[in-house]
Amino acid sequence: MKITRMHGAGGKVMQDLIKNTILGNLENTSVNGGIGLKDLDDGATIPIGDKEIVFTVDGHTVNPIFFPGGDIGRLSVCGTINDLSVMGAEPLALSLSIVLPEGFDIDELDKIMKSINEACKEAGAPIITGDTKVSNVDDIVISSAGVGIVDRGKAIRDSGMKEGDVIIVSGNIGEHGMAILLSREGFEFETNLKSDVAPLNNLIKNVLDAGVDIHAMKDPTRGGLADSLNEMAEKSGLGINIYEEKIPISDEVQSIADALGIDPMTVANEGKVVMAVKKEDAEKALKVLRRHPLGKNAQIIGEVVSEHNRVIMETIVGKRIVDTPIGDPIPRVC
Amino acid sequence: MKITRMHGAGGKVMQDLIKNTILGNLENTSVNGGIGLKDLDDGATIPIGDKEIVFTVDGHTVNPIFFPGGDIGRLSVCGTINDLSVMGAEPLALSLSIVLPEGFDIDELDKIMKSINEACKEAGAPIITGDTKVSNVDDIVISSAGVGIVDRGKAIRDSGMKEGDVIIVSGNIGEHGMAILLSREGFEFETNLKSDVAPLNNLIKNVLDAGVDIHAMKDPTRGGLADSLNEMAEKSGLGINIYEEKIPISDEVQSIADALGIDPMTVANEGKVVMAVKKEDAEKALKVLRRHPLGKNAQIIGEVVSEHNRVIMETIVGKRIVDTPIGDPIPRVC
Repeated sequence: MKITRMHGAGGKVMQDLIKNTILGNLENTSVNGGIGLKDLDDGATIPIGDKEIVFTVDGHTVNPIFFPGGDIGRLSVCGTINDLSVMGAEPLALSLSIVLPEGFDIDELDKIMKSINEACKEAGAPIITGDTKVSNVDDIVISSAGVGIVDRGKAIRDSGMKEGDVIIVSGNIGEHGMAILLSREGFEFETNLKSDVAPLNNLIKNVLDAGVDIHAMKDPTRGGLADSLNEMAEKSGLGINIYEEKIPISDEVQSIADALGIDPMTVANEGKVVMAVKKEDAEKALKVLRRHPLGKNAQIIGEVVSEHNRVIMETIVGKRIVDTPIGDPIPRVC
Repeated sequence: MKITRMHGAGGKVMQDLIKNTILGNLENTSVNGGIGLKDLDDGATIPIGDKEIVFTVDGHTVNPIFFPGGDIGRLSVCGTINDLSVMGAEPLALSLSIVLPEGFDIDELDKIMKSINEACKEAGAPIITGDTKVSNVDDIVISSAGVGIVDRGKAIRDSGMKEGDVIIVSGNIGEHGMAILLSREGFEFETNLKSDVAPLNNLIKNVLDAGVDIHAMKDPTRGGLADSLNEMAEKSGLGINIYEEKIPISDEVQSIADALGIDPMTVANEGKVVMAVKKEDAEKALKVLRRHPLGKNAQIIGEVVSEHNRVIMETIVGKRIVDTPIGDPIPRVC
């Protein structure tokens, strides 16, 4: 059997590849009883003394490499910072592995590195180690790993939702994937739409510092909010009810999604976080999120229930099941 | 200016690209006073309490992906384990970022994952986090980052050589690069030559556990032993004298190198370590190395001097300067 685009799209086909061919062959996938590869969380942990090192990696092959709101460099830094942040960790440092095609313009690499520098400054975490190769790739590939730290036992899992928890999303969904899609050839929408790509560590730190009890957290990238919510539901054994009217989305993204027949719930974000928080803490969490520029459109979108184990959306015309997307409607977004 | 093959070959051209375009754009490249990107060591460190987290990354695009003695999976694991090990760290865990082309055979991915599993078992360090993408690459790209740990202040630097130190190499040089070269089309040597790709952490641990004072250590991959020795000389401000007759090399590699006009000193290794050890500890180090299968051909090849700041090789016809190679004679080896 051959790899197809669907194997990289963040949906069910990809999950099967990962479970069978990748996880199926690895006998040991965790250290010192920490969170490991088999947990399929946003990162892993290495317990050491009274701390856990949080470790994560992301590969990036976005097309185009420069897009409204960002570029592959900013995306690499933010993707990794955000994976550490949604584990509840403080990002400490990043690594950068760059593969360049022959003929790549060094001025473009220069622009990408400047953008990486800016994103690192925003996040407050530097690139401390790296590797560069030149090879037979069509375009630049950047893989960024990250190391963070969290108090032992305090890492926030995808699986931690509890019945009655409130689901909060930090802002308008679908902007990254849509901006990428529109910046490719062949679409002639008049739009100012930009990717939301941004480091979320400071936003999330504010919520944690306020004492909000976050039971589960994810950044809804490939597969969008639909994928993240389904993962949280599946891993906790609980269900999520959400309300369409509450889901923050710009008119622009909504109208483009309608025009193209794409469900914005399945479109990638790169600067949004979805969290399940203790009911009593929900209003406080919302207030703290909205005080930060990256959280100004934060919304409570639903709650965790035990009656079912799906993600169910209430719309003006009735209820519908929000499924894990089979594959991303927009490939090569991150 | 455009990227050429030389920018990825581990020599001077590549060093310039890294210094100017990559390092030149990054304002902050270390954490908590640890070893950072600007040190251009085999990895970086993050001091935390009485320990340092050691962090490293390597990208791999080897051609062919299966070669005598290994494959891209084994190479990815060993490359990262070895970068941690030559910093004096105990490897804890690895990450794996895989980029697959459409049409890649899932059976081949399965073979690569099995090989990764075997290498992880040899090294005693698991893959705990990962990412998979499908994109426009000609062949599979694997980037592996690694996290290790060392007591604070005990990380072994490239730069730590002292006058009078003895230079030891753990075995026959040039086997990885030559095996790759011969496994490509167009060469018709009759040979059993295999890549030396192997995890060195247990070998190095034995030497450290024996109390040997290692002042500087590297794994001579891209650019070969010539590149590693020059880096150690440059960073320490000292010189190295080596003796051609002492350098361990198989007749096979030597004769192929002669036939092709390639200097084996510049050919990549993936299972060798070169170390500068305190003179009094040299014999003990050699004994410990030779007891391990990966170190059975270990040799003392020279010593550290203060009279010059080069790498000078004594041969039967006189002395010659061993320079940093301008670029690797064999591209896409690791």
